[in-house]
Amino acid sequence: MLDQNPRNNHPLNQNLLNQALESGHALWLEYDDLHYVRFVDNYHGICRGTAVFDDLVVYGYPSIGRVLSLQSGLSSQFQAPFWMEEKVDGFNVRIFKLNNRILALSRGGFICPFTTDRITDFIDAGVFEHQPSSVLCGEVVGPDNPYMDGEVPYIKEDIQFFVFDIGAINETRLAAYSEKAALIDQYQLPSVPRFGRFEMKDLSQIRDILLQLNEDYREGVIFKEDSRRDHRAKYTTANINIADIQSGANTMFDLPPEYFINRLARLALFMDDHDIANTQALQQQLGNAYMEGLLFAVRQLHAHHKVFRTFRCRFHERENAVKLLARLNEAGNHVQITMHDLSLDSSGYWLLEFDKVFAKSSGTLSSSLKGSLLFD
Amino acid sequence: MLDQNPRNNHPLNQNLLNQALESGHALWLEYDDLHYVRFVDNYHGICRGTAVFDDLVVYGYPSIGRVLSLQSGLSSQFQAPFWMEEKVDGFNVRIFKLNNRILALSRGGFICPFTTDRITDFIDAGVFEHQPSSVLCGEVVGPDNPYMDGEVPYIKEDIQFFVFDIGAINETRLAAYSEKAALIDQYQLPSVPRFGRFEMKDLSQIRDILLQLNEDYREGVIFKEDSRRDHRAKYTTANINIADIQSGANTMFDLPPEYFINRLARLALFMDDHDIANTQALQQQLGNAYMEGLLFAVRQLHAHHKVFRTFRCRFHERENAVKLLARLNEAGNHVQITMHDLSLDSSGYWLLEFDKVFAKSSGTLSSSLKGSLLFD
Repeated sequence: MLDQNPRNNHPLNQNLLNQALESGHALWLEYDDLHYVRFVDNYHGICRGTAVFDDLVVYGYPSIGRVLSLQSGLSSQFQAPFWMEEKVDGFNVRIFKLNNRILALSRGGFICPFTTDRITDFIDAGVFEHQPSSVLCGEVVGPDNPYMDGEVPYIKEDIQFFVFDIGAINETRLAAYSEKAALIDQYQLPSVPRFGRFEMKDLSQIRDILLQLNEDYREGVIFKEDSRRDHRAKYTTANINIADIQSGANTMFDLPPEYFINRLARLALFMDDHDIANTQALQQQLGNAYMEGLLFAVRQLHAHHKVFRTFRCRFHERENAVKLLARLNEAGNHVQITMHDLSLDSSGYWLLEFDKVFAKSSGTLSSSLKGSLLFD
Repeated sequence: MLDQNPRNNHPLNQNLLNQALESGHALWLEYDDLHYVRFVDNYHGICRGTAVFDDLVVYGYPSIGRVLSLQSGLSSQFQAPFWMEEKVDGFNVRIFKLNNRILALSRGGFICPFTTDRITDFIDAGVFEHQPSSVLCGEVVGPDNPYMDGEVPYIKEDIQFFVFDIGAINETRLAAYSEKAALIDQYQLPSVPRFGRFEMKDLSQIRDILLQLNEDYREGVIFKEDSRRDHRAKYTTANINIADIQSGANTMFDLPPEYFINRLARLALFMDDHDIANTQALQQQLGNAYMEGLLFAVRQLHAHHKVFRTFRCRFHERENAVKLLARLNEAGNHVQITMHDLSLDSSGYWLLEFDKVFAKSSGTLSSSLKGSLLFD
């Protein structure tokens, strides 16, 4: 049962929770013996992904707006110096401790069986002994993850975890930058790369960092104002858009069509921002991103009659792999899950391999290959 | 007043028209002293674009489905030999005579002031003396048209008109192929290129024609079954998709996002169909199509604070140019019209020049350039 008196930094009370449940904006879920509620969308100031365990609320991680032009973005968004951190390209989780268990919530507010199983490989659980209310907000990144096409140039196998914010149970507020940095140091937590504190006059230095990230196919950065309001903005590189287009073209009809439009605009504006020439090499790379992905899907259809992608990830406990599959099957979303293999590997992990079959891409392309008439 | 008794080939009666008007599926319009009704969408078997002038109905031109794979498309769609004609890349009009005036209807059922003004440059009006109920269905193609980015390789200036079907007032039925061909010959009407009558066994000949059209950047073909049911399908070339992407990238945010997805799929399936290799040259061409269009829009914004395209077209009568501008302004659709010039040219035509300003592309890109925060 939640308190009836909301505070500024703890706005969810029992009445609002009841309303959200009644109107379908929040739903009951189960995980093992836990019953909890997740907010499926933003509702009366409560962020999507907020999760409620009896009287404990883990608030959702707030959306960060994007600027597409660096100089005008920084000067129009920030009123004070700002920190700059790398935005790593994985999936967002919140780690917290509940009744002696360390749990990981996905951005959407589901307990993630995969991250929950693996998280203590990457953080010292001691942090929660001294700071029992902490919520570590971070990114799980690496090729062997169950959610996303996870190619990043700096992680060749398995996953890693990087903290970018620290919050607290029953608090919407995230720790100030210096407080976060101190906790990271104290508990030797893995952090996203932090580039330092900048002002507008450091623009050329900021540009240099971004051009290097672009060359390295790293996604981009988050700017965090060094002020009470802690205003934030993200800014991403050109090459990550080409990489995203290549990965998306393979399952094109299963993505919102804005996926491509938005990335093309970001690419063009990064080029405009940094005077990157529209060379034949860049054009060829972009065209290749589309064609490789699409023609791969067509070849999959000819050979297997479906468009699919194979995922693999490692678990300590077999049962967590089973839970993950159940969770992915529930999620549905025109994606079917087919397990290949779940067996102990040489290093003592349970290695899960499964396919995601993309129903819309499979259906659209296969009916075209069969000669159906389309009215478009 | 329409008849109360619909026939098979004349399904619109007064009751159905009244229903359509009451429910907003048909709307009253004016053109000079004419009052007429147009169907804004398909309604109870009446095709979008159908226009009603008192008791005379000019039925809408029916949609033709598309196949994306040649062999499977032909074998699954056709039960008899079929005619093959070029699909020219312009805008669809229907030409007919009403009370001694020759009028042109757009696909949507508006009287088009531009085509109405110019149509007798391209056809001998005599056809309507002998065949007063005829409806000539054809395509207006060429760079100097008011509606579309009109680059076709075979028309360097102004427009041309090509007939592909002949219908009749108060008839949904289109003339059989042989009947149409006879009328075209008899009245020396300009026809779309006609490639002949084929069967499945002629597949390699059909392929050769399509590969030549592809090399020439021509849009594709329409297949028409030589049978009572007159079943039809269209099939388009690879290169036209790249050309469409280049033209669309310039005003990307004003197009339905499926615009690009669909063209990419058609491109990949044409390549798959005809064993066209995914060469670096092709990739570079595709990437260039996106980047040229997008970066041109960004340059327009820097220089003019808007994304626009300049159109020009010629008229015999000045008042028809004025009517066209009024018509385009009414159409709205997030596009603003700005006239540059309307003056007599050396050949005695009124030359109209105007810009279409694309509000969504202008707004989205300019707010990005100003440093706004986007939540995407």
